[in-house]
Amino acid sequence: MAASRKRRTQKKKPAARRSAGARKLVYAFGAERTEGSRDMRDILGGKGANLADMTSIGLPVPPGFTIATEACAAYNARDGRLPRGLMEQVRRALARVERETGKKFGAAKRPLLVSVRSGAAVSMPGMMDTVLNLGLTDAACAALARDSGSERFALDAYRRLINMFGDVVMGVDHHEFESAFTEIKARYAVASDAAVPVEGMRELVDAYKAVYERRVGSPFPQDPLTQLQSAIEAVFKSWNTPRAVKYRQINEIKGLLGTAVNVQAMVFGNMGDDSGTGVAFTRNPSAGDNAFYGEFLVNAQGEDVVAGIRTPRPISEMPSWNAKVHRQLLAIKKKLERRYRDMQDIEFTIERGRLFMLQTRTGKRTGPAAVRIAVDMANERLIDKKEALRRVPAEALTQLLLPSFSEEAKAHAQRLCRGLPASPGAAIGKPAFSAAEAVERARHGESVILVRHETSPEDIEGMHTAAGILTSAGGMTSHAAVVARGWGKCCVAGAGDIRIDEAAGCFTAIGRAITRDDLISIDGSTGEVMLGEVRRVEPRLSDEFATLMEWADARRRLRVRANADTPEDARRARQFGAEGIGLTRTEHMFFQPERIALMREMILARTRDQRRAALARLLPHQRADFIGIFEAMDGLPVTIRLLDPPLHEFLPHDDDNQAALAAAMGVHAHEVRARVAELHEANPMLGHRGCRLAVTFPEILEMQTTAIVEAMVDCLRRGVRARPEIELPLIAAGAELAWLRTRVEAAIADARLATGFSGELDIPIGAMIETPRAAITADELAHAADFLSFGTNDLTQMTFGFSRDDVNTFLPDYLKHDILEKDPFQNLDARGVGLLVEVAVRRARSVKKRLEIGVCGEHGGDPSSVAFFHRAGLDYVSCSPFRTPVARLAAAQAALDDRP
Amino acid sequence: MAASRKRRTQKKKPAARRSAGARKLVYAFGAERTEGSRDMRDILGGKGANLADMTSIGLPVPPGFTIATEACAAYNARDGRLPRGLMEQVRRALARVERETGKKFGAAKRPLLVSVRSGAAVSMPGMMDTVLNLGLTDAACAALARDSGSERFALDAYRRLINMFGDVVMGVDHHEFESAFTEIKARYAVASDAAVPVEGMRELVDAYKAVYERRVGSPFPQDPLTQLQSAIEAVFKSWNTPRAVKYRQINEIKGLLGTAVNVQAMVFGNMGDDSGTGVAFTRNPSAGDNAFYGEFLVNAQGEDVVAGIRTPRPISEMPSWNAKVHRQLLAIKKKLERRYRDMQDIEFTIERGRLFMLQTRTGKRTGPAAVRIAVDMANERLIDKKEALRRVPAEALTQLLLPSFSEEAKAHAQRLCRGLPASPGAAIGKPAFSAAEAVERARHGESVILVRHETSPEDIEGMHTAAGILTSAGGMTSHAAVVARGWGKCCVAGAGDIRIDEAAGCFTAIGRAITRDDLISIDGSTGEVMLGEVRRVEPRLSDEFATLMEWADARRRLRVRANADTPEDARRARQFGAEGIGLTRTEHMFFQPERIALMREMILARTRDQRRAALARLLPHQRADFIGIFEAMDGLPVTIRLLDPPLHEFLPHDDDNQAALAAAMGVHAHEVRARVAELHEANPMLGHRGCRLAVTFPEILEMQTTAIVEAMVDCLRRGVRARPEIELPLIAAGAELAWLRTRVEAAIADARLATGFSGELDIPIGAMIETPRAAITADELAHAADFLSFGTNDLTQMTFGFSRDDVNTFLPDYLKHDILEKDPFQNLDARGVGLLVEVAVRRARSVKKRLEIGVCGEHGGDPSSVAFFHRAGLDYVSCSPFRTPVARLAAAQAALDDRP
Repeated sequence: MAASRKRRTQKKKPAARRSAGARKLVYAFGAERTEGSRDMRDILGGKGANLADMTSIGLPVPPGFTIATEACAAYNARDGRLPRGLMEQVRRALARVERETGKKFGAAKRPLLVSVRSGAAVSMPGMMDTVLNLGLTDAACAALARDSGSERFALDAYRRLINMFGDVVMGVDHHEFESAFTEIKARYAVASDAAVPVEGMRELVDAYKAVYERRVGSPFPQDPLTQLQSAIEAVFKSWNTPRAVKYRQINEIKGLLGTAVNVQAMVFGNMGDDSGTGVAFTRNPSAGDNAFYGEFLVNAQGEDVVAGIRTPRPISEMPSWNAKVHRQLLAIKKKLERRYRDMQDIEFTIERGRLFMLQTRTGKRTGPAAVRIAVDMANERLIDKKEALRRVPAEALTQLLLPSFSEEAKAHAQRLCRGLPASPGAAIGKPAFSAAEAVERARHGESVILVRHETSPEDIEGMHTAAGILTSAGGMTSHAAVVARGWGKCCVAGAGDIRIDEAAGCFTAIGRAITRDDLISIDGSTGEVMLGEVRRVEPRLSDEFATLMEWADARRRLRVRANADTPEDARRARQFGAEGIGLTRTEHMFFQPERIALMREMILARTRDQRRAALARLLPHQRADFIGIFEAMDGLPVTIRLLDPPLHEFLPHDDDNQAALAAAMGVHAHEVRARVAELHEANPMLGHRGCRLAVTFPEILEMQTTAIVEAMVDCLRRGVRARPEIELPLIAAGAELAWLRTRVEAAIADARLATGFSGELDIPIGAMIETPRAAITADELAHAADFLSFGTNDLTQMTFGFSRDDVNTFLPDYLKHDILEKDPFQNLDARGVGLLVEVAVRRARSVKKRLEIGVCGEHGGDPSSVAFFHRAGLDYVSCSPFRTPVARLAAAQAALDDRP
Repeated sequence: MAASRKRRTQKKKPAARRSAGARKLVYAFGAERTEGSRDMRDILGGKGANLADMTSIGLPVPPGFTIATEACAAYNARDGRLPRGLMEQVRRALARVERETGKKFGAAKRPLLVSVRSGAAVSMPGMMDTVLNLGLTDAACAALARDSGSERFALDAYRRLINMFGDVVMGVDHHEFESAFTEIKARYAVASDAAVPVEGMRELVDAYKAVYERRVGSPFPQDPLTQLQSAIEAVFKSWNTPRAVKYRQINEIKGLLGTAVNVQAMVFGNMGDDSGTGVAFTRNPSAGDNAFYGEFLVNAQGEDVVAGIRTPRPISEMPSWNAKVHRQLLAIKKKLERRYRDMQDIEFTIERGRLFMLQTRTGKRTGPAAVRIAVDMANERLIDKKEALRRVPAEALTQLLLPSFSEEAKAHAQRLCRGLPASPGAAIGKPAFSAAEAVERARHGESVILVRHETSPEDIEGMHTAAGILTSAGGMTSHAAVVARGWGKCCVAGAGDIRIDEAAGCFTAIGRAITRDDLISIDGSTGEVMLGEVRRVEPRLSDEFATLMEWADARRRLRVRANADTPEDARRARQFGAEGIGLTRTEHMFFQPERIALMREMILARTRDQRRAALARLLPHQRADFIGIFEAMDGLPVTIRLLDPPLHEFLPHDDDNQAALAAAMGVHAHEVRARVAELHEANPMLGHRGCRLAVTFPEILEMQTTAIVEAMVDCLRRGVRARPEIELPLIAAGAELAWLRTRVEAAIADARLATGFSGELDIPIGAMIETPRAAITADELAHAADFLSFGTNDLTQMTFGFSRDDVNTFLPDYLKHDILEKDPFQNLDARGVGLLVEVAVRRARSVKKRLEIGVCGEHGGDPSSVAFFHRAGLDYVSCSPFRTPVARLAAAQAALDDRP
C-alpha cells in the first residue's frame, strides 16, 4: 500500500487521463438517488440542476441522469473524443434508471426509452438539438407496440427517432424524411400525419430507414448504446454550431464550459386522449400577474407545443379535461416559486393520466411582467428590494414605455388579420420574408417586419434586426414568441389567416397581396395586424413601475436628466423622473416653418448688421421656447447648448425652395444657390459647426445668451425658478472655451442690464467634451468651465473615425467578423472612448475637485454605458425622456454593484 | 547710522518704489564711458548691446545711451507711467553726451540733436518707430543753420522732426504733412522734395507746425526734454501695437520684457555730397559668399535707404566716391565678424567725410546663404560644426531645394519687366494689390503674388500668405526684401517699369494691363517677372549643402524616410538622402488614365467575381510600380499602405464621364449614376475607407498583397534587395489589425507559393495610427504589428474634430483671436495630438520594447514637429522627398538639444 501510494505521488499521470479516470462526470436523479443539486448549474446546466432539484423536493420527474458540462468542454478540446470513462459512468447511471422504471434499455420486453437533451448553465431556447425515443430498435419497437397496446404509437415513436437521430445526430437533411412521408400520405390519399394508417406507418419506418441508410451509408443502429453515445456527442458538437455561437454573442453569454446532456426516461403525452403535454409559466410572462399561465395539447408530444405546429389549448381549460392533474400542477407552481423565488417556466407530460415534470427554469418575461413580478415578489417577501431591482433588466423598461397604437387610429385602420399577442409593442415596417432579407434591408436603414410561417433558430439574426415579427403559425410559446418576449420585441404569432408566398415576396390577407413596399402595423399586445402606418400613442405606467422606480431612486448615486428641446419634451421628461434637462438643442427650435425663413436670412446675410437684424427677429421665438422649458422644469437645471450644426443644414438644397427663398429675400436665385454651394463642406461633421460658429459669428452667441437671460428674468419675476446653464459644443481647446466664456459673460451682463433686473443671475457656463482633444486636455477646459458634459456620440465618431451617417457600409461586417463586439454607438466603447472619459474626468477634477460632469446623448440611456459612467464618477447622465426610467434603474443597479 | 539701517530693514519700502529709485535703467556708451556690453541683450536690446559693444572695441559710434528693456516693461505694467527716477538718469546720461560732442541739447548755439530708436533683444525690422533730429526747436534750428552753413539743411531736419514726432509720437496722420508738402511743391511748381527752395522750406516748417497744432491741440514743443520724454514713451508704447504683436506672433518671439530705447547723437548723411549713408552685410545675404555687400546713398538720411524711396548705389562703387571710408568699412567688417562670429548687418553714416557706425546686428539671410555662411565659418574656424548645424534654420533649406524656372521655358515666356533679385525662388500666382486682398484670396486657396509699390509693416500678414512679392520701388534692403529673405519667400523688388493701379485692380507692364485673373511668374533669383505660368525645374545643390547634410547625418538619431508613390519620387527621395520610403500611397497609382477605368469597373462590380476580375487586370500595373520603387530603393525599406481613400473618389461625378464609363462597361448610365450616388458619404473622412475597405472587400487587400509579393520575388530573383513593408491604414482596434493581418499573411503565403519562390519572404506588417482610438489602444495594436506609423494629418483631424478640407472657414479666426497659436496641420499640436503620440509610443513599447515606430505625413517635414518626434522616441520620420533635408537637419538639431 505504502509503496503504491509512493509511486503515485512520484509519477503523476497526465492531467487529462487522470481527470477522465478520476472525475465524476455523470450525476443521477431519481427516487433511488439524486446526486445533483440546484447550485450545480455550472456543472449540470440549468435544466439538469433543476431536474435534480425537482426530484429532490419530491416532484414527479422521470428518472435519468445528467452528463456534466465539463465533459462537453473536454470533448471539444480533444477534437471530438469522449473523455475516458464517460461511457462507463453512463452505463452505470442507465442501470439505475432501468431499476427505477422497471424497464430495460433496448430490451425486447418493456424497453426503456430515453430522451437526450442539451442544457447549459444559461437557458438558450431552441439552440441545442434534442433526440427523443432513443433506445428504440426493431425489436424494442415491437415490444413497445405490445406494451402500449398500439402498434401505431410504437411505429410513430420509431419513425420520430429515425428522423431526429438522422437529422440531428447524423446530419441527414430532414426534407428527405419529409418527402418520404409526403409520398406515403399521397399513396394513402390522406392530408394529415395522424390519418396515415398502421400499414402506412410501417412503410414509413421502412422508408425512413432506407433514407437513413442511403445518406449515412450504414443501417440505422440497432444497438441502443451506440444510439446513446452518438446522441451525446451530437449534443456536445451542437455547442459550437454557428447558430449557437451567434445566440451566445447576441445575448452576451460568456464564460461557460459547454452544455450538459440530460438523459431521461421517456414519458409519452401521445398515448391517447388521457395523455397530453404542456408548458406553463407560474405567472403571466406577458403582464406579470400572479396567474398560472400555460397551454397544453391532448395526445401530443412536447415538441408539438414548442414548435407551434398545432395550436394548443389554454391551461384554464384543463380542469374540464383532468381536474386532478390541474390541481397537482397548481400545487407544483406554488412549491416551485417558494423554492426558486422567481417565476418558473415548466414543461410537463401526462402519460395515461399520470403527471410528469420534465423541466423547470426561470421563465422569460416581458418588461412589464418583469417589473410586476419583481415588485409583487418583494411585496410577498419572496425576495428583498435590492433583489427586485436586480431582477428587472433596465433595458426591459422601454417595453413599459413603448408607445401603443392609438385606439382611434386603429378604429380607422384597415385590419389585415388577427394573431396571438405574443410580445407586446407596436411595430411599423415593411414585410421581409426571410431572415437574410430582414438583415440586409435593416442594414440599409429600413424598418422591416419579419413575416414567416414560423421561425427557427436559424432566423435569430433576422428576428433581432427586424422591428417586429409576424408568424402565421405557432402559439404563445412558439419559438418566435419566446425569443421576441426575451428581447422585448413586438411579435404577433399564429396569424393563421394570412398566406405567405416567400418566392413572390408577398403575403395575402383579406384577399389582397401585401408586398415588400407596403407598410404594416403590428400590435403585439392585441395580435392585430393593420395595413399602413397607424398612429402610436404614449404608454400609461403601472403602480408597480412607480414602486420600482421609487426603490431605484433611493439606491442610485448618479443623477438622471433628460434631453429635451421643447416644453412638451421637458414636461414628459419630468413625468418620467428627470431631475433636470441635460441637453437642450437650440437648433431644433429653428426648424419650425415660421422660423426657418428667419434662420435662412441670418445665414445668407452678407454683413454683420444684416445678420444681427435677422437674429433680432429670431430672439423672441427662442426666448418663448426657453420660458416654456424653464416653466416645465421649475426649480431644476436646464442645460442649453448653443447653436451646434453646420449652417448649411438650415438651407434649402433643391431648386424650388432656393427660388422661393430668393423671392422672399428679394435677391437673385443664383445668389442663394451660390451661398448654399459656398457653405457646402466636405466633412460637415468636422467642419464649421459647434462653438466654431460662435467664434466666427459671435452675434449668434449673443442673441442666444440674450434670449436665455430675458427668459430667465421673465420667469424669476413671476416666481418661476429658472435655472439655465449655458453649454458650448464641440470645444477642442481650453483657450477656445476661455475666449467664448468671456463673450458669454459679457452678453449676460449686457442683457441683464437691459432687462433692468437687479438681482444676481447665476448662470453656469460649461463645455461639451466631444472631441478627443477636449477629453485629453480637460484640465485646461476645467479652468474656464463651471461644468463639463460628454457628448459621447461625437466623441465616439471622432475616436473611432466612424461617421455615424456612413457607418452602415462597414459596421455590419465588423460585427459579423467579431472585429467589434458591439456597435459603439449603442453601447459605450469602454476600452477606447471610455478611456478618454476616464482621463478627462481625472484631469478635470485635478483642477476643480468637485466639478460637475455629466453625459448627454444616447449612451446616457444605455444600461451598460450608465454602469460605466457610474464607475467613472460622473454626476449625471442625460438621455431621451423616454429612456429616463431605464437610466434610473441602471444607475441603481450600478450602485448596488458597488455595495453588494 | 545703525538706527537708520535698522529702520530700513524693519520697514520695507514698497517694491516698485524701491526698484525705481535703486535700479540702473540708463546705460551710457561713448568715448568717455561705456556701461553696457554685448551680453546684455536682454537688458539693452540687440541694437543697444551692439552699440555699447561697438563703442568698446573702438569703432566710431556717435555717443549716446540706452534705456533698459525693464523700463519698457515697467512703463507698460504701470499703465503708461515712467519708472520713477528714469528721466533723472536720462538727464545725467545726456549731459555726458553733451560733454563728448561739445554740443548742448536744445541750445541756441551748437545744439545737440539726438535720434531715438527702439531695439529689443531680438531684431524686428521696421516694427518699432524711430524719431530723428530730436532736440530741434525754433532756436536750435536757427543755430543749426548757422553751424552747418545751410539753412535749407536745418529746415529740412526740422520739418522731418515735426513730421516724425507728430506722426510717431502724437499720432497725427502723416498724410496731413504730406499734403502740406504737396501744396508747397505745387506753389513752387517743383516735382521733387529736393527742388523746394529755402523760402518754401520755411513755409513748410510753418505749415507742419500748423498741422501739428491743429491735430495735437498744442504747439510743437519747444522744450527738447519734453520732446525726448514723449519720444521715449512712444517707443515704449510701440511695443504693444497690433503690428508689433503680430510680428512677434508670426516669428514666434516670446518671453521678452519689452524694447530698449537708444538715444544717440545725430550724425547727418545729408550734409552735402561729402556725406552719405548706407547699409551693408558682411557677407552676401542672398548667396552667402564672403563678399562685402551693401548699398549707399550720397547726401541722404539713413531712412531713405531702408524705406526704398531712392534707389541706392552698390557699395562696390564706393571707392570712387570715398576710398578711405570704403577701406575703413572693410576693416570694420572683418573686426565685427571676428567679434560676433556671424554675418553682420550694419548701418553707417558719413558726415562730411567722417564715418559713423550706427548699428550692427546679426544679418538676416536666405536659406542658401545660411548654409554657405555656416559651413564657411566652420571651415574658417569661426564656429564649430555643432554651431554650424544650429545656425541654419532647418526650414530655410527648402529655399535651396526650391524649384527654379526652366531656362528654356523662360526663353519662350513673355517678360513683363525686370526688378531686383531680392529673395530667391520661383513663384507663380495671380496679382493681389493689397495685403488684405492677398490674405482673403489665399484663404480661398488661391496662389497670389502680392504686388505693391513698396511694402510696410502693415502688410506683414499679406506678405506672409502670398506665394511671392513684387514691388515697384525699393532696393535689396527695402522692407519687402529684408522680410521676404527672412522667410525664404520669393521676392522681386524695385521693378520700376511697372505701374500699379490698386483701385483698378491691375498693373501695367510693356503696355498691357495685368489683372487679378492673369497668372504671373516671378523669379526671385534674377528679378524677372513673366506673364503666365512658366515651367519650373528642380534645383541643383551646393557643396556646402552636402557638407552640412553630412554633418547633420552624423549627429541625428532619428532616421528620415520619404513619402513616394512612384519610382521617380523614390529616386528623388534617395537623392535627397531618404533612408527608405515611409509611405507609398497605392491609390495614387490608380488615378492614371489607363488604370482609372479598371478601378471604376472594380468599384462598380456587383459581385465578388466581377470585382476579382477587374482587380486581376489592375494587378500587373501595381506590380510594375512596385518593381520600379523597389529598384529605386534597392536595399532600403519601402512601406506600402494598402488602399486608403473612399472608393467614390475614383468615380466620375459629372454626367458626361458617367455616360462614357457606362458605355465602356456596357451598362446603363443610370446604373453608374445610381452606384455613384450609393457610394456618396456624408463624411467621407470618417467613412468607408482605409482598412475598412479591406474588411468589406478582402479581395482588394489580396490583389495588392499579391502584387507586392510578385514584385518582391521578381526583384529578389534579379538581385535587387526589395524590402517591402505592408501598412494598414485607419486602424481603430487591435482586433481589426489582427483580423487583417491574418488575411495579409494568408495572401503572402498564397502568392509566394504561386511564384514558386523557395526562399523566405520577410514582409513586416504594420498599422497606421490615425484614429485617436488607435493611439490610446496602441498596446493592443502592438500585439499584431511589426511596426507602427503615425498618420498625424488624420490624427490631427480627428483629435481636434477639424476637417482639413473645411478648416479654412474658421481656422483663420482662431489664429487671429489667438485661440490657437499655430495651424495644427502645419506644426504638430504638442499639447493634444502630441499627447496621443506619447501615450501610443509608451503603450506600444510596453508590449514590444523595440517596436519600430515612425510618422508619415506633412508633420514629418516640419522642424518643430520633427523635434517633438525625436523627444517622443520615434524611430523615423517620413516626409515629402523635397523636405527630406529639412527633416535631416531638424533631427540633428533635436539631437544637439539632447546633448548640448
